[in-house]
Order: sequence, then structure tokens, then C-alpha cells
Amino acid sequence: MTTVWRLRTGADKRIRSGHPWVFSNELAESPKGLPPGSAVELQDAKGAFLARGYGNPHSLIAFRALSFNSQDEEPTSLDFLQNKVLNSWKVRKAAGFRGSFRLAFGESDYIPGLVLDYYVVEQKGQKAQVFAAQLVTAGMNEALKNVEEFFKGLVEKAKAQGLSEFGWDKSAVVVRNDVNIRKLEGLNVEEPKVIKDLSDFDLTDVEILLNAATDSGLVHMSCDLKEGQKTGFFLDQTHNIHLAVELYKNWAMTQEKRKLRVLDLCCYVGHWSTQITRALKAAGFEVEVSLVDVSKSALAFAKKNAEREGAEVIVHEMDVSTGLGELPSTHYDIVIADPPAFIKSKKDIPIGKHAYLKMNTQAFRVVKKNGFVASCSCSGLLEEEEFRDAIRKASLRNFSEVRSVLRGGHAADHPTLMQFPEGFYLKMYVHYVI
Amino acid sequence: MTTVWRLRTGADKRIRSGHPWVFSNELAESPKGLPPGSAVELQDAKGAFLARGYGNPHSLIAFRALSFNSQDEEPTSLDFLQNKVLNSWKVRKAAGFRGSFRLAFGESDYIPGLVLDYYVVEQKGQKAQVFAAQLVTAGMNEALKNVEEFFKGLVEKAKAQGLSEFGWDKSAVVVRNDVNIRKLEGLNVEEPKVIKDLSDFDLTDVEILLNAATDSGLVHMSCDLKEGQKTGFFLDQTHNIHLAVELYKNWAMTQEKRKLRVLDLCCYVGHWSTQITRALKAAGFEVEVSLVDVSKSALAFAKKNAEREGAEVIVHEMDVSTGLGELPSTHYDIVIADPPAFIKSKKDIPIGKHAYLKMNTQAFRVVKKNGFVASCSCSGLLEEEEFRDAIRKASLRNFSEVRSVLRGGHAADHPTLMQFPEGFYLKMYVHYVI
Repeated sequence: MTTVWRLRTGADKRIRSGHPWVFSNELAESPKGLPPGSAVELQDAKGAFLARGYGNPHSLIAFRALSFNSQDEEPTSLDFLQNKVLNSWKVRKAAGFRGSFRLAFGESDYIPGLVLDYYVVEQKGQKAQVFAAQLVTAGMNEALKNVEEFFKGLVEKAKAQGLSEFGWDKSAVVVRNDVNIRKLEGLNVEEPKVIKDLSDFDLTDVEILLNAATDSGLVHMSCDLKEGQKTGFFLDQTHNIHLAVELYKNWAMTQEKRKLRVLDLCCYVGHWSTQITRALKAAGFEVEVSLVDVSKSALAFAKKNAEREGAEVIVHEMDVSTGLGELPSTHYDIVIADPPAFIKSKKDIPIGKHAYLKMNTQAFRVVKKNGFVASCSCSGLLEEEEFRDAIRKASLRNFSEVRSVLRGGHAADHPTLMQFPEGFYLKMYVHYVI
Repeated sequence: MTTVWRLRTGADKRIRSGHPWVFSNELAESPKGLPPGSAVELQDAKGAFLARGYGNPHSLIAFRALSFNSQDEEPTSLDFLQNKVLNSWKVRKAAGFRGSFRLAFGESDYIPGLVLDYYVVEQKGQKAQVFAAQLVTAGMNEALKNVEEFFKGLVEKAKAQGLSEFGWDKSAVVVRNDVNIRKLEGLNVEEPKVIKDLSDFDLTDVEILLNAATDSGLVHMSCDLKEGQKTGFFLDQTHNIHLAVELYKNWAMTQEKRKLRVLDLCCYVGHWSTQITRALKAAGFEVEVSLVDVSKSALAFAKKNAEREGAEVIVHEMDVSTGLGELPSTHYDIVIADPPAFIKSKKDIPIGKHAYLKMNTQAFRVVKKNGFVASCSCSGLLEEEEFRDAIRKASLRNFSEVRSVLRGGHAADHPTLMQFPEGFYLKMYVHYVI
């Protein structure tokens, strides 16, 4: 029988507003004794049904809701969770995502604890699909302990519903539980695990397919889906890149010069550079891309990806926190400042904010007049206002007239919920300088 | 000789951060006696140069900066201000705006007090350009008191620089000083004035040209550039409409049905409906558009505009604050909730917030499953967080699973400055419901 937890009197406001979390101090009784990740029904102080989900007595977030509907009797069942993921999949399809995208974004897809990236891969003319999952809570770890069964069922349903063309024989599953956030739930940080492999594919160097920014085709990006950062690729910027690239392309069409210079800071495998190159080459321009990253293997992928679209590539293997001073001033038409999260916990905020200021100061130093700087932050703990302030200082140190001409954010494959502001983390402002 | 104003000790922080305003209580001495709108040089408490601009002793905002550069000796001259507008023009061109756009957005284009919309118009196969100006401060009123000379010079420079193909003979100028905000500056609210007309054009019913949302052409929109609301058209939504229409089109391509229903609340002259219709018709769909507005004349324009692109139009002349209950539930595929500013001053905030809640509650009531609601607010005084909260309540009253799949904002023709958050007012969230 499902464990029932009651809230203290008056502690039901957040959950009634649709927010999926309950903190341990909001419970009427101690949660101790419950095996972490067990199914829990939540009631208010008077015993009225509020939600069903799972509990963890070792976490500050003691309960996470999977359903607010009392008729959903087993929301931790594989069937229920598969249907949740299929809902998310439909949202991505509706929004025009083809190829690769984030398929489930935890709480913001009403599936707390599950982060799931979906890749369509191609090798030697063959295509297949790869699921890369992070199980970040004890509840999701427990619910999906039979990972293979979960994905097998998901693949069958997705194919039957026309969401995917691939069957189980053309599917791989990688579990990327190598994330520190699991420690907050009392879980181990594990090595990446391939639960189901594809015999004809080498997932450590495989081409993923992604919507192209300004044409209806698909871009190929080589990356490592077994050991690469995060789940092998940073899918969250796809939409922001599209918005910015459209702007750059419109701008390029007004330029006399035929060769454009792009600087891609913290380029990882070169998503920005590859998409920019493709769009500008199609518009008839030569594109010189300067790739900056601290990782040799990421730079090798980035070079391959940008060159595939026709870029002339210059590689700078450097640590952005110390090396950017070497780059020439007022030299690049387009500068991308899209670093990994500088702020991972509250104590990092002051140092992290300074790091954004420093990187953006360099970005505005090296951009040419009549050029663009894209400033991004994926630090959820950095308030948007604080990020804007860092950009203000950085830009006005270098220019007297600078305008924000584009504000990005989350796209449909990283949806946000108005009731769950904690899920909002991705910020982008593109500035034009004159 | 230019009047010099000094700041109190310690009151220079904001202006040194690039913000263009000084409040009267930050001045070392009373500003009384200065003729409103006169040129002023601003210094810090020790006499160091800070900025030049104009002053108004009758306004809470006593000083607004036109330049932070001591070498700009006459920033209230027509030549200097024309060059400022030309800078703004270059930004719009760089960002891909063709046809009509906001050409100067006051403080956010480094030209405090000047709001200037630019229209390319067409009638009987002839094209021309129309400038619609609002002079909202005493300083700008004074600097541009010779409006015709200002625009004549601007037109000549713009043509010489390749920004416009039109000469003065193909230019009209309308001054729209019919805005209450002028009262804060001690200025009169005036009737709209045509300073320079076009003999072959009837500006009360003229077609303006605008970038189309999903093709490279230009959309024609009939409107009244002499007496219509604001400057005759709401240009600020052009980019948000583009973003949303691309999403709707991608979604439509996944649908089996061939006819789609759109509800356009507070449609004014039908910008949303016209762009949506054009994109969906091009993709092979029939489009039924329900236009809702309280203004008979706006509805007549909206009907003409949507029908020009092939919509089947249903007209609802109603006040959205009382009439929306009559609309059928779960009936529309796409709902647009883009009202005029419900909040015009701080005292309106509670009532205004409730009005957004009410309108969005209706919007989420009438949208179909697997459909979209675009929720917009152009109330600068409504914090984004508060607007999100209204959407949260409205959406969760009607659906248990709803995601924000797109966040809009300001585009390059309504730029924002990190140092001037007061210029940020336009918010848009598109939700998908399942």
C-alpha cells in the first residue's frame, strides 16, 4: 500500500499552486523510515488528496509530485511514466523539433527527476536513435530501476504512435548518472553506462542530426555520446542559436565584405560555429571561425563540425579565465560568449558573477564595430537581473552605444512552467555595437 | 552658453552606470528658473563632466542625457539628433527589418524623449515613407521645434547613406503628440498634426508594408496613420509575432485537419491574424479567424487585412472585460491574448493584474487541447514575475499539463539597454496545452 504523508496545516499553498515540491519541514510528521524513492500519496492537514509522487527522507525536497489527479493511481509505474514522456515527445514534434532534442526536462515536463536527451544518429549511411538519461532523484532511480524495460516499452509506443521511425533494434540507451546532484538525494555518482548498444555504431564518435538554423535541412554534428560532457551535447541552445543565426544572416546581407570572422568562446563541439557557418556560407560568405576551449577532444570535434560546413578554422586551446587577453582587439564580427555554468551552488554566486563580467568584458573588447556579442548564462542561480548587470558593465567599458537586439530563453524542448520558476536557467542577450 | 547643473555628492552613481536620467532631488541646487527643455551640461559635485542633454525643472526627471562624451558639444542640435536617428536606422537594417519598424525608441536608442515610427506605405502602385513622431519631453519638444527642418535633413541624409530610397517629395511627417505622458513634462496634449502630407496618398486608410513572418515577402496591412491608436499601428509585436507564427506553422504541419481556428483578442487592425493566416495558407491550410475588439473601425481594418491573406473572418465587436464569456469553450487551435496596456500608472497595478488574469483565464478556457495560447503584456509597470503568476493561475484553472514553449521580448526595433531597465515593457509567453 502506498505510504500517505500529510502536510502541516497551512503548508499546502505551494503544492496547490501546481508546484511539484514539498520540503521536509512542511510535513506533519517526520519522513524517516521510508525507503528512499518509494511511492507516496500527499494529503493536506485534514486528509484531503493533494498529489501522488515519490518521497525521500534524506533529501531537503522530501516529496515530488508526479500527478495531481487522484485517478492516477500508480504514477510511479513504467506505463504511466512512459506516457508522460510520450506527452513531452508530442510537444517537441508540435514545436517543429526534428532530429535531436531534449525529450524530458524533469519537473518542467511533469516528470520530476528524469532528464532525457534524444539523439538521431547517423553513421555510414545508417540511422538510429539514442536515449541518454540522467536519473537525478531516488524516486526516479527507483521507478526506472528496470531501465531497459522502460525504454523498450517507450520505443514500442513511440513507434506505434508515429513519433519515431525506429524500433528497439535501432535504439541505444546510455545512462549518464555521472552527476553530482545525485548526492543530494543520497545516490551514488556512477560512471556512464551503456544499457543498450548499437552494434553498427561507435557512439564515442558519432554524428547527431539537428534542425538547421536557417534552412529546412538537418545539421550533422560529431560528438561523443558515451563519455562527452553532460549527455554528450548541449541541446539547450538549439533554439537560441536559431534566433541569433537568423539575425546574423540578415545582418550579413547588408555587408559589403565577403569574409566574416566568428569567435566562439567555450565552443565545446562547436554548435554555434557550425550553425553560423552553414547559414553564412549558404548566403555566399566566407567564414573564419576561431574556436576557443580548454578541452582538446572537444576542439577536435568542433573543428571537424565547423569544417564540414565549410569554415576556415583557427583553434585556440586555452582556459578562458586566463587566456582571453591574448586575442586581438576589435577583430571579430560575431562573438559568442556561452560558457558552462560558472555558478553551481549558492556559494559560487559572487565569484561566478565576476567570471561572467570578465568573459563579457573580453567579448566586447574583441568585437568589431557593427558586430554582435551573444552573451549566455546557463547558471540557474544567477538572477537574470544580475546577469544583465554584468553585461551592462562589460559592454559600457568598451562602447558608448550598445543595444540589446534579441533576448533568448528556453525553447519547447526545455519548456518552463510558470508554477516552477526553479526550472528557468537559460539566459541569452545578443547585443549590437556601433 | 549652456546651463551647468551639478549633482549632490554621491548622486552620480546612476548616471555613471550609463543611465540617462537625473531626478530633481539629486541636483545640488534647485533647477527652478531654467526654461523647460533647455540644453544642460551635467557635472558631478566636484565639477567633473558627466553628460550633456536637456533639463526640465517641472519634471520629476529633471535631466536626460543625450551624450556622455564631452566632445559632443551640441547634442540638442538637429544635426546631432539626426545622426542619432541614423544610427538607430542602421541597427534596424542590420537586424533585417524592411518596410515598417520603430525607428527611434527614446532612451533605449540614446535619444530620450523621441519615439519615432517609420512606415513604408503603398497606394495605387505608388510607394512612399511616413514618419510618425511623438515628442514626449520638453527637451525633445524644444530641440525639434522646427520639425519639418529636422525631418527634411533626416530624409536627405538617409537617402545619401542608402538607408532609404525615398526623397522629401515621397515623405510624410505626422506628429502624434496626443499622449498623456506629455503632461508629466508640463506639455500640452495636442491633436495629431500632419506636418508634411503626400498628395497622392490618403493616410487615413493606407497600406503599410511589413516583413512577413515566414516568407521573404512583405505583408500589406491597412490602417489609419493620421488618427489611429498610438502612431496608427503597434509595431512592437512584429518580432514576437514572427517567433510565434513560425511555431504555429511547424505545429500545423503535424496536424491531420486542414482547417485551423484562430481567436485574436484585442486584435486592433489584425496584425497577428494577418501574419498567421498568410503563413498557414502558404502551408496549405484553411484559416478561420475570429476577430475581437471594441473598436468598429479597427475591426473593419482587421477584417480587410486578414481577408487579403485569405482568412474566413468572424467579427466580434465586444469589450473583452465583459464579453469573452460568450465565446465557445475548447474551440480554437490558436488563441492570442494581446491586450493594450491594462496598467498605465502604479495605482492601476492590482486591477490591471486582475484584468490579465481574467483575460488569460478566458483564453485558456476557449483553447483546444493541443493548441496554443499567446499571452502578452505591454504594461511596463507589471513585473514579468507578476505576469507569469497571472498566466500560471489562468492556465492551471483550465489544464493540468501546460508548458511555456516560447518566451518573447523586445526586438531590434525596440531595443533594450541593460543600463535602462525602465525601457523594458513587452512580455510574451506562448503556452502549449495537452
